[in-house]
Amino acid sequence: MGESRIPTVSDLGELELLARIRARMREPTPNETWAGDDTAILGWSDDKILLTTDMIVEGIDFDLSYASGEDVGWKALAINASDIASMGGRPAHAVAAVGLRPETSVAFVDDFVDGLLAACDAYGVALVGGDVSAASEITATVAMVGAAIGRPLERSGAAAGDAICVTGSLGGAAAGLVALRRRMGDDVPAVARLKRRHLRPPARVAEAAALVSLAPTAMIDVSDGLAVDLGNLIQASDVGCEVDAGAVPIDPDIRALGDVDPLEIAVLGGEDFELLFTIDPRRTEDAAAALRATGTPVVRIGTVVESGGRLGDRSLEDWRSRGWQHLRSR
Amino acid sequence: MGESRIPTVSDLGELELLARIRARMREPTPNETWAGDDTAILGWSDDKILLTTDMIVEGIDFDLSYASGEDVGWKALAINASDIASMGGRPAHAVAAVGLRPETSVAFVDDFVDGLLAACDAYGVALVGGDVSAASEITATVAMVGAAIGRPLERSGAAAGDAICVTGSLGGAAAGLVALRRRMGDDVPAVARLKRRHLRPPARVAEAAALVSLAPTAMIDVSDGLAVDLGNLIQASDVGCEVDAGAVPIDPDIRALGDVDPLEIAVLGGEDFELLFTIDPRRTEDAAAALRATGTPVVRIGTVVESGGRLGDRSLEDWRSRGWQHLRSR
Repeated sequence: MGESRIPTVSDLGELELLARIRARMREPTPNETWAGDDTAILGWSDDKILLTTDMIVEGIDFDLSYASGEDVGWKALAINASDIASMGGRPAHAVAAVGLRPETSVAFVDDFVDGLLAACDAYGVALVGGDVSAASEITATVAMVGAAIGRPLERSGAAAGDAICVTGSLGGAAAGLVALRRRMGDDVPAVARLKRRHLRPPARVAEAAALVSLAPTAMIDVSDGLAVDLGNLIQASDVGCEVDAGAVPIDPDIRALGDVDPLEIAVLGGEDFELLFTIDPRRTEDAAAALRATGTPVVRIGTVVESGGRLGDRSLEDWRSRGWQHLRSR
Repeated sequence: MGESRIPTVSDLGELELLARIRARMREPTPNETWAGDDTAILGWSDDKILLTTDMIVEGIDFDLSYASGEDVGWKALAINASDIASMGGRPAHAVAAVGLRPETSVAFVDDFVDGLLAACDAYGVALVGGDVSAASEITATVAMVGAAIGRPLERSGAAAGDAICVTGSLGGAAAGLVALRRRMGDDVPAVARLKRRHLRPPARVAEAAALVSLAPTAMIDVSDGLAVDLGNLIQASDVGCEVDAGAVPIDPDIRALGDVDPLEIAVLGGEDFELLFTIDPRRTEDAAAALRATGTPVVRIGTVVESGGRLGDRSLEDWRSRGWQHLRSR
């Protein structure tokens, strides 16, 4: 009788593993060369390209006791697409470097690649190459290039008097992490949605493309939490902010957890990957109209002021000091 | 009295660490934005960009018992520059994602960044962003974009009758690894050179730029060893090869080790990062002349044939089966 143990990465070896991954990849567009040579060759016609990289690490950014390979692949890709979107860019091409424990199952790797490619399909990205290495923990590092649709939207352009707006809702991803850590089931739909919000974060690519023509003065994605990212935006712009706590779009599903403060988790929770932007206040209605086709709402939460930063009855610094930093929190 | 323990990454926290790294980075060129926003914004004027990523992992690609932070940073950058060069490209911009143990010293990180930037300066690359994460082992993943100087030189263009040529010398990096593992000192200059060859691999960027106008039919960098990379080249080109073992440019310093077979280590040893290319045989002299200004020699080692692969008195498959694959060898 043949052995029935699950095949692992070390059973396959690097070359077979790469061939297996390559076989799952999309066919390159004509005139381009993707994986299979030393680098990918990309057709390009714009004057500005956007380039970013983000790394996620097992035990820090994901936990395999509740995240699947597909979840990890999706997240690795989506967080980079979100960075391109938040610059007012169109994500275009990505490469992925993956560290794998030798005992990692091949099925996990297949799932991981499927998740990467599902996010690529969702956001119009071509995965064009990558690298794999043995490692003692699973890591996924994506680098992505994108084209600026118009003028790139830096975080430094906010001016006093601008409206502060945010897409979608906040706090759901952090609440989903709480639900996952509590091993809550999927029988309550709101809890299931929160968990998915953490495991499959969206990148607001279509939303960013719709906003560019309205010339936001600054834009950033909410990855480290509203308090931290808004703080980064006003610091880069050398301005202040006044945010109405009552206007913060708290994810309504958070109430299903019962024992967390919805505003606190919406302001401090990270990884919602919503777009936070500043814009001429006469254009906030236009922004909402522009996003209608995407199904994603947008709300004004406050105003850029000359200096100081307040969110509700607390200073932004007070809020920020409650946020977390990856290296410290481990 | 103040404490005198060495500051670590976890003492600093992510934001301070990023600020510290950013402070060491070069000033962006006018009209560009580098680290400090969600992505880097890059001026671009070519129609083809080259994009690649390579990851190195502690204990597999480097060993901190003999490699310094600068060595690791240099290597992480140079191996990507080598990939761009081997396509006939000019390395342009890079991003680096780094996984760091919380107990990693800040001095190590400083050294790592210095090594990255030294290689950037050597190869004309702008480091324009990156990411850091806590991890349980040190990893460095660089992604690089480059411009194709002319037509990108893929590995699939070799045709029967072409000359097979290689730059520099082979086997030095693998011999250097042997010397490092044996903890050999620097008193014998040849041994010191071998060790440096392993720790600070070159990227043949200037050499590739000089070769492009001579229209090599295929090119690849020797990263996994001559037998493996030549095998990859002829397989991609659907041709064979006849290599004269006596023509293989064995690094003369290897003799200092005494007990290794110089030809075997030159054919199987990886990480020399020399350029292996095929070219019209009437142009081999021109190739040597074109590289004269770089100080790097180039020699013809064989000829592309219709099928089959031989290197000396063995088939290439026989040689290749002795090579290693990262995931298996751990």
